Amino acid sequence: MHYLDHASTSKMLPEAVEAALAVMRAAPRNPSSVHRLGIEAERIVEDARRDIARALGCERDELFFTSGGTEANNWAILSGADGLPGRGGLALTSALEHHSSLEPVKALSRRGFDVRVLPPDKNGDITPALVLDAFENGPCLMSFMLINNETGQLSDISGIADAVKRREGVFFHCDAVQAFMKHDFSARELGVSTLSVSAHKIGGPAGIGALYVKKGAKLPPVFLGGGQQKGMRPGTEPVALISAFATAVNLRRAALAEDIARMNALRDHAMKLILSAVPGAHINGRPDAPHILNFSVRSAPSEVLIRMLQDSGVYVSAGSACSRGRRSHVLAALGIEPALCDGALRVSLSPESTEADIEALCGALSKALLSLGTGR
Amino acid sequence: MHYLDHASTSKMLPEAVEAALAVMRAAPRNPSSVHRLGIEAERIVEDARRDIARALGCERDELFFTSGGTEANNWAILSGADGLPGRGGLALTSALEHHSSLEPVKALSRRGFDVRVLPPDKNGDITPALVLDAFENGPCLMSFMLINNETGQLSDISGIADAVKRREGVFFHCDAVQAFMKHDFSARELGVSTLSVSAHKIGGPAGIGALYVKKGAKLPPVFLGGGQQKGMRPGTEPVALISAFATAVNLRRAALAEDIARMNALRDHAMKLILSAVPGAHINGRPDAPHILNFSVRSAPSEVLIRMLQDSGVYVSAGSACSRGRRSHVLAALGIEPALCDGALRVSLSPESTEADIEALCGALSKALLSLGTGR
Repeated sequence: MHYLDHASTSKMLPEAVEAALAVMRAAPRNPSSVHRLGIEAERIVEDARRDIARALGCERDELFFTSGGTEANNWAILSGADGLPGRGGLALTSALEHHSSLEPVKALSRRGFDVRVLPPDKNGDITPALVLDAFENGPCLMSFMLINNETGQLSDISGIADAVKRREGVFFHCDAVQAFMKHDFSARELGVSTLSVSAHKIGGPAGIGALYVKKGAKLPPVFLGGGQQKGMRPGTEPVALISAFATAVNLRRAALAEDIARMNALRDHAMKLILSAVPGAHINGRPDAPHILNFSVRSAPSEVLIRMLQDSGVYVSAGSACSRGRRSHVLAALGIEPALCDGALRVSLSPESTEADIEALCGALSKALLSLGTGR
Repeated sequence: MHYLDHASTSKMLPEAVEAALAVMRAAPRNPSSVHRLGIEAERIVEDARRDIARALGCERDELFFTSGGTEANNWAILSGADGLPGRGGLALTSALEHHSSLEPVKALSRRGFDVRVLPPDKNGDITPALVLDAFENGPCLMSFMLINNETGQLSDISGIADAVKRREGVFFHCDAVQAFMKHDFSARELGVSTLSVSAHKIGGPAGIGALYVKKGAKLPPVFLGGGQQKGMRPGTEPVALISAFATAVNLRRAALAEDIARMNALRDHAMKLILSAVPGAHINGRPDAPHILNFSVRSAPSEVLIRMLQDSGVYVSAGSACSRGRRSHVLAALGIEPALCDGALRVSLSPESTEADIEALCGALSKALLSLGTGR
């Protein structure tokens, strides 16, 4: 099997599985329990928080566990808007965002916000100048992603944060789900108010993620109830998932520089092979991230190609798994013509991906195009 | 070790651990992926949904996975209120609820609701008559729990639902986290709009739960984003957790009647032993549920007793783990004097609990009281 859909979800690292298993098989542990088992559970959770905070470049009391990226994005945007002074203001995002950011921002119109969804410039970028142009005085909720989940394009988040840092009443959320452990950044240095990450994209388990909340940022809790996580995110902490998440982060962090270099080389290799094997292949967006490559062929719709590749044991996607069956709003916003949007394929790597995976992809692609009568 | 704190969290059933492990060790699976691996993942999720729906007594398309009971309670109450006609109305709950229901209901006052927190009657019950008394015409959000998490007291949820069923604009949420797989009920037959359950109380993993949403009940989504779970609860489904949850449910459901009978007998045995071993022991509330027994001693604060019992290998709690360090609002609402509230212990069983556990508890309790100079 050649799995090249790691931006959708990645296989759990064996060490992360073992970490989850160790908790699952042990005595029951609720971190809120007063007795020894509770205290042990709390220690596992707080050690994990420390490790993940270090990897994110923040303090441990700036990190809150969530059920994943969708919860983290919704929390930051909807509660971040609630925490702004007054009622309403400007809600600013881009046409390139993941639906779990885009939809909450759009929903702010029902709360009296003036919602503006910025189109990118001719390079596909949301620049600080574009953001400043749209800016108005008064409260503002902004949400921009660090690395695009469909194209791998990197945004100048710290530049945007710099451009607005003198303004008051700005809450700036950054979706870093695809950037975490694929790009070297520090949440604090980016200068945002909140930043979301997810475990299952980096070899951790599905069902757990985290939100960085900058000290001093005004963010009401996501849920109300027990006092867990300082009352910011109540609910019994899933100790097994948290421990597995930290294990994956620690492993990825130790090898980050080499992993990035190797994935970069592999992505370049893939791009070269695809451009030579596929007549008229078109690279969509600018593949800045080491692990994502989006390209289009005109021969057949993405879903047909995905199934043909699957028959050769190669697994890719058409873009965001979360948008199954819909034409990509990201590629459309980049001005890519509909015929190319409909034939888009996203290849996404993990640090464990190999040249053999890429060669299998290109072989399968050539075979598919030949059988469609459009190959070389 | 004699673990008698199952109402806080329970050990995962070995079969549930294996189910989680099978997914975690397999190929990466995102149920939204178009390829074969995605379709396999979707099948696991939908089979689990069918099984858990059957155990809950509802249709599979009435069941939505959440990150746990806290999310499910918050979703039902806050979104349920949003879905009511007009703005505001009556928000009705009881002083006996878990904080993850009580706090969201109280928060509705900021959305224009008239919040009424009903005290129980002299038997500690919230009766249909009490609810009808408080009722007014116009939209109403109600939230009452099926089995109290601190005392094990059972509420007449179907009686309350019957009493208001002719009224229009009523949204009735029921927190059934402690009742699920400890009490034989059907979500549909209770007649509520929504009902919450959690996996880690029944031998499943922490980090997963579910909300029953009656067909036709108007409930806006908990998060916005991808189209997962019909757009009601977007976010990549945690397949391993869902599979483990269903495994635990299937095992528990097959043995439900025997488990209830055995836990009932064990709880009665514990009550008898405690009342004879502990001078002046006071049973708090009415232990209707088979797995919860709450009692008070006057000798020492709960936390001291919990630590002394722990030294004998016996693990109990002072009530809700989620309310660590606060005096129980539930016992206070039952009119129990503060000195007894502060010495409350909650013993909670699982189907795996044994007579040896109960005897160890009573032995440890006698020893602790002797060393405090108040034993027999």
